[in-house]
Amino acid sequence: MTDQLAKNYPELRPPLRTLLGPGPSDIHPRVLEAMAKPTVGHLDPYYLELMDRLQAMLRTLFQTGNAMTFAISATGSAGMEATVVNLIEPGDTMAVCINGVFGQRMADVATRAGAQVIRIEKTWGQVFTADDLAPALERKPKVVGIVMAETSTGAGQPIEEISRAVHDAGSLLLVDAVTALGGMPVCVDDWQIDAIYAGSQKCLSCPPGLAPVSFSEAAMEVIRTRKSSVQSWYLDTTMLSSYWGTERAYHHTAPINMTYGLYEAVRLILEEGLDACFDRHLQNHRALRRGLEALGIGYAPQTGYELPMLNAVWIPKEADDAWTRRELLRRYGIEIGGGLGDFRGRVWRIGLMGYASRMSNVLWLLAALEQLLAEQGVPIEPGSGIAAASRFE
Amino acid sequence: MTDQLAKNYPELRPPLRTLLGPGPSDIHPRVLEAMAKPTVGHLDPYYLELMDRLQAMLRTLFQTGNAMTFAISATGSAGMEATVVNLIEPGDTMAVCINGVFGQRMADVATRAGAQVIRIEKTWGQVFTADDLAPALERKPKVVGIVMAETSTGAGQPIEEISRAVHDAGSLLLVDAVTALGGMPVCVDDWQIDAIYAGSQKCLSCPPGLAPVSFSEAAMEVIRTRKSSVQSWYLDTTMLSSYWGTERAYHHTAPINMTYGLYEAVRLILEEGLDACFDRHLQNHRALRRGLEALGIGYAPQTGYELPMLNAVWIPKEADDAWTRRELLRRYGIEIGGGLGDFRGRVWRIGLMGYASRMSNVLWLLAALEQLLAEQGVPIEPGSGIAAASRFE
Repeated sequence: MTDQLAKNYPELRPPLRTLLGPGPSDIHPRVLEAMAKPTVGHLDPYYLELMDRLQAMLRTLFQTGNAMTFAISATGSAGMEATVVNLIEPGDTMAVCINGVFGQRMADVATRAGAQVIRIEKTWGQVFTADDLAPALERKPKVVGIVMAETSTGAGQPIEEISRAVHDAGSLLLVDAVTALGGMPVCVDDWQIDAIYAGSQKCLSCPPGLAPVSFSEAAMEVIRTRKSSVQSWYLDTTMLSSYWGTERAYHHTAPINMTYGLYEAVRLILEEGLDACFDRHLQNHRALRRGLEALGIGYAPQTGYELPMLNAVWIPKEADDAWTRRELLRRYGIEIGGGLGDFRGRVWRIGLMGYASRMSNVLWLLAALEQLLAEQGVPIEPGSGIAAASRFE
Repeated sequence: MTDQLAKNYPELRPPLRTLLGPGPSDIHPRVLEAMAKPTVGHLDPYYLELMDRLQAMLRTLFQTGNAMTFAISATGSAGMEATVVNLIEPGDTMAVCINGVFGQRMADVATRAGAQVIRIEKTWGQVFTADDLAPALERKPKVVGIVMAETSTGAGQPIEEISRAVHDAGSLLLVDAVTALGGMPVCVDDWQIDAIYAGSQKCLSCPPGLAPVSFSEAAMEVIRTRKSSVQSWYLDTTMLSSYWGTERAYHHTAPINMTYGLYEAVRLILEEGLDACFDRHLQNHRALRRGLEALGIGYAPQTGYELPMLNAVWIPKEADDAWTRRELLRRYGIEIGGGLGDFRGRVWRIGLMGYASRMSNVLWLLAALEQLLAEQGVPIEPGSGIAAASRFE
């Protein structure tokens, strides 16, 4: 390598971060190891077996028996697009619940798919009740889309009541579980979810690049009887079902090493046990919350609906948003997220997702935050945050 | 982990293969190492710098100054879809040159994007001349799509003459370089290519999962002045340009570790030097060809247009296609590809791509093939293949 090349394209040396933002989350060493295992062909008997196993594990995570449970070969947003474009044909009506960035995005995706979109809007951070949906449901939309864990607001949306109302109207229920999956119960069958998508880089603690999805039999029936082709060749579920199904028909070249990573990531969750994993997310969330509240920092979402894996909190008025986040990264190597859209400059988003949801991270962040807030003249009692957090209950 | 879990979801232990199929190709150890480096956030200053560097390297590979040169966060087929759906609006005319699977696929993708598709068809393995395109060009299509290296037939399509004809007609030229990029010259600016896509898993020898693309200024102007939104949110180049450009506006969460892999993969090519890399592909192709011809095995594509990185050869009539490939994998750990579509059961596709393009692999494959062919009664002289291949010229 010439000196010039070496200067322009230096050796890959990513800094060590503690990823407490809205994702990607910290990756477990075993998952990083898995990413580097020798690549095999995408039709290799070993890989086909791995796909079967991954599907079975994803069914456990999604708590579903759905045959069409697999991973889209792209990131979570492509999972959103996959569920929407497979269910929607031009002219179909789709109602979308919007109380944050990802509801907005879903409405955008649905519009691009040719849907007549009914927007059901609510203040950011508030959750929906069945009553909120009633006027839209009277119009009998083909599909109703809703975000279970709004990554932009930190609000957790209960699904069961919504699902009953949606099905009573004869609609299909489409759920965004990008941030929820792996960090709290997601019960696809019990809640009668017809299409759902997630991302690999949140509570699954795998690098970004795959989007686990699941389609109910009712959804697949709608897809199989479409009048028009799915607008996306890459995301066409009927073609993908021939590759993930028993036929193993070549569709695209699957991202082998990403699949290794996801396999190991989900395996870690099943080893821990779903309930233990959800409880860990909850306990660490409560500890962080005690600590933040001791520092006078409150939560943005509607009370009682705060997500365990994504803590959206009001930025103290004396603190500079950008400076604080920059110094957290520079001095401590800690990444947290800023606000998006309506919450820009007003909210911090602190992720405790997957492998990153550890008590050591809670204390490390609080200690760093105490220091930075004190420097900016935020009236806090140094040490009070970590003391409150570490009062194990 | 309970015994049952350990049994159902065993430790990840992929077998060691020699990947001489149509991709993925063998991955260089430095690329696998890169895949396992610590994940940082997708808006981390380190990652943003890495994106800049990757873009600069991809411009060198594509031999272009195009600002919009970057990687789509999905596999090569999504690169195809990205170039098509950004350029095409419903009702636009697109001519597609079809002489194999990937031309067919491009026509399918264009149809789904709402294009009026003009199919220009030729026998599999033959290449196109400007004359072949003349009738279609009279209809002044907005875009003409063509595959530079047809992975299904092993035929290499010269682009320059086609490009002149396409631009004389006032059309935009869209090129599939999935299998070409990194293994032979791809001169985007000199050849006036308006949109081009590739895949990470062929001659770049990175695991599958990213699709390098480049758009000319003329193409971007067409995209910026569209009347309708791009049908795919995930692949919308105007939004992606805000993330890859100076604004760094959040779009989707980039596949960080895949980007690490691609960075290291392209860095290896630049270290070797483009010309040396192309010459290596050519020399190893010639060696394989001498060996195969000594065994009486001929090439499927039009003479003079055989691709260096993908050798599509006729299966000897005495040989059983499936058995031979299965035994290559089982006994020797060697993967080669079977035929697709018109070539199913008639052609083997032997890739010598990227890191897999090594003389040791040529000899290893020929030795294994000689053994298996002899067992099936194919009339060959044992040792003649590897002897012919190793006559260095």
